[in-house]
Amino acid sequence: MAELRYDILSGTYTIIASERAKRPNDFRAAQQHEDPVPDRDPGCPFCEGNENETPPEVHALRDSGKPDTPGWRVRVVPNKFPALRPAETAEIDSGMADIEVVPEVDDSSMYWRMPAIGAHEVVVETTKHNGTLGTYTVEDMAAVLETLKQRYRVLGDDKHIVYVQIFRNWGPEGGASLLHPHFQIIGLPLLPPEVSTELSRFSEYESKTGRCLMCDYIERETEKDERVAFKNREFIVLCPFASRFSFETLIVPRKHSVTFSELDNDKAVQLAEIFTSLFRAYEKMFSSLSYNIVFHTLPPPKRSRKQPADHWHIHVYPRLNVEAGLEKGAAVWINPTPPELAAQQFGGKG
Amino acid sequence: MAELRYDILSGTYTIIASERAKRPNDFRAAQQHEDPVPDRDPGCPFCEGNENETPPEVHALRDSGKPDTPGWRVRVVPNKFPALRPAETAEIDSGMADIEVVPEVDDSSMYWRMPAIGAHEVVVETTKHNGTLGTYTVEDMAAVLETLKQRYRVLGDDKHIVYVQIFRNWGPEGGASLLHPHFQIIGLPLLPPEVSTELSRFSEYESKTGRCLMCDYIERETEKDERVAFKNREFIVLCPFASRFSFETLIVPRKHSVTFSELDNDKAVQLAEIFTSLFRAYEKMFSSLSYNIVFHTLPPPKRSRKQPADHWHIHVYPRLNVEAGLEKGAAVWINPTPPELAAQQFGGKG
Repeated sequence: MAELRYDILSGTYTIIASERAKRPNDFRAAQQHEDPVPDRDPGCPFCEGNENETPPEVHALRDSGKPDTPGWRVRVVPNKFPALRPAETAEIDSGMADIEVVPEVDDSSMYWRMPAIGAHEVVVETTKHNGTLGTYTVEDMAAVLETLKQRYRVLGDDKHIVYVQIFRNWGPEGGASLLHPHFQIIGLPLLPPEVSTELSRFSEYESKTGRCLMCDYIERETEKDERVAFKNREFIVLCPFASRFSFETLIVPRKHSVTFSELDNDKAVQLAEIFTSLFRAYEKMFSSLSYNIVFHTLPPPKRSRKQPADHWHIHVYPRLNVEAGLEKGAAVWINPTPPELAAQQFGGKG
Repeated sequence: MAELRYDILSGTYTIIASERAKRPNDFRAAQQHEDPVPDRDPGCPFCEGNENETPPEVHALRDSGKPDTPGWRVRVVPNKFPALRPAETAEIDSGMADIEVVPEVDDSSMYWRMPAIGAHEVVVETTKHNGTLGTYTVEDMAAVLETLKQRYRVLGDDKHIVYVQIFRNWGPEGGASLLHPHFQIIGLPLLPPEVSTELSRFSEYESKTGRCLMCDYIERETEKDERVAFKNREFIVLCPFASRFSFETLIVPRKHSVTFSELDNDKAVQLAEIFTSLFRAYEKMFSSLSYNIVFHTLPPPKRSRKQPADHWHIHVYPRLNVEAGLEKGAAVWINPTPPELAAQQFGGKG
């Protein structure tokens, strides 16, 4: 059983998950040969017809067929090699820490650990093995986003889950182990440090200015118009002022919105339009780009917890530059591409 | 001129350094062909005889010869493509933030930036193009460590430099752009977030317990003896309890020591012995391992600043697992190798 461990030195967490070493990895081969990717791969567990190679689906958008048979457009299954498992299947050791406890910085928490309970799901976006975000129709993409929202809500309601991390790994440098296009959703039993840092900054900003940090930021960026890559009625795509990665982008709802849960049908279509424009541009600029997409959005509050100051958003981190000693040692990034230049390349004013 | 920018959302910093894109990169070729690496490469700027291809040396251990000619054993040169430049060569814009100012979380710091002043040096460890840490003699390695200490002291005395980051990038996944073995030293005009977080934890621990966090940690690890990879009289190598990376290690002085500056000749030999044992083991276990070595040590205080609670140490991060969406989005790592198992592989009890 995987274990969540706390690092007394940095206050960060690691999931020690020895079973993950068994995962398939077809990227190395795909990259070395640089063969064109076929639209169906008989050996791929996410391709249509291979539904019995994944754990049973927990959700699907279907045109036809019973669960775990062909006929779906988007399909959600538990990860076969989960980093975290649902509480009911986990053998919880007594003496492990309670959830929602932030470890103290003293000798009581030097070996703080807990079973890695939570959830780890895969959202298979399409039956097309060679699908890419840049080739989806707006309708395809809206269906993926609606599915993400649905699972995010279900997992967010789980009493063992404090935070739901939605992400997409793409390409070998992005850490993708399977080619077939998919998002992942991880339910964590704690508020992760990266999110906790952002939240405390939102709340500090609000208490000092009375306003939302993100609302102010996108207002000023819209005015300056130096780093805007795309925008439509509901969303804006920025190349962030202090971008860590070359061609990094940030997707933000233009009207104040606390959680992803607030995405209605109209906004899902607007976000889908932004996604397809952005990734069409990425795919035109780079023949094969590795990246990570990460959503930052708290689930709606449970157990009368107050919703903290927040404005949900999506980071896109292209993995063009390797993070090395300075990034690892100091958490200072070196980025050779000014975001103003990146915005220009996307067609913005720069 | 490169620029240091602050990210209002995360409180982290990025160096926007467009000149860095011009760096040579001979790793991709080396890896693809997997040719044996020769002991001298006529095209390598760090090989003996090519001294005129680097900026003039700032320090060298020499058996013979004048500066910038053959005859050296260890040679220090400014990085030809520096991420940060010394203050005297930087065109400092007025209106830029003062150094040693931590930006406020309010609208005044939304576009906080400063010229990327500091230093960026390369410590060429050996004339052997194909040298590796695991093949050095203890004497070779001690000479490298003494050189690092000397430059760390000189840069730490610079009034523009607040923190000196010593690191070594190795292999393509480690972000090394040149094969010839070298350490790098970056002088930063601010206390970086990763170090600042560690320091605040040392200080919180001390105020709660009256003791040093690292002294307590290595005492308990030595007692448990489950995660000890190596030790000698002065140093211990641990596989940290919450290791982020497979086969991650932490090198720590066993007696309380605040800064790397306190390394005397005897301790340099002890540390060299630990380094060569550890890297002989890494090189035996993995035919080609990418990694980052990062030193965490504050320079001795300047301008009557009080030295905060600290105990210097060295992190070794093998880059066997790719950091993906969960690491980037949440700062939660997934590590498939329990550190107890890693310690066993190094020959510890595990």
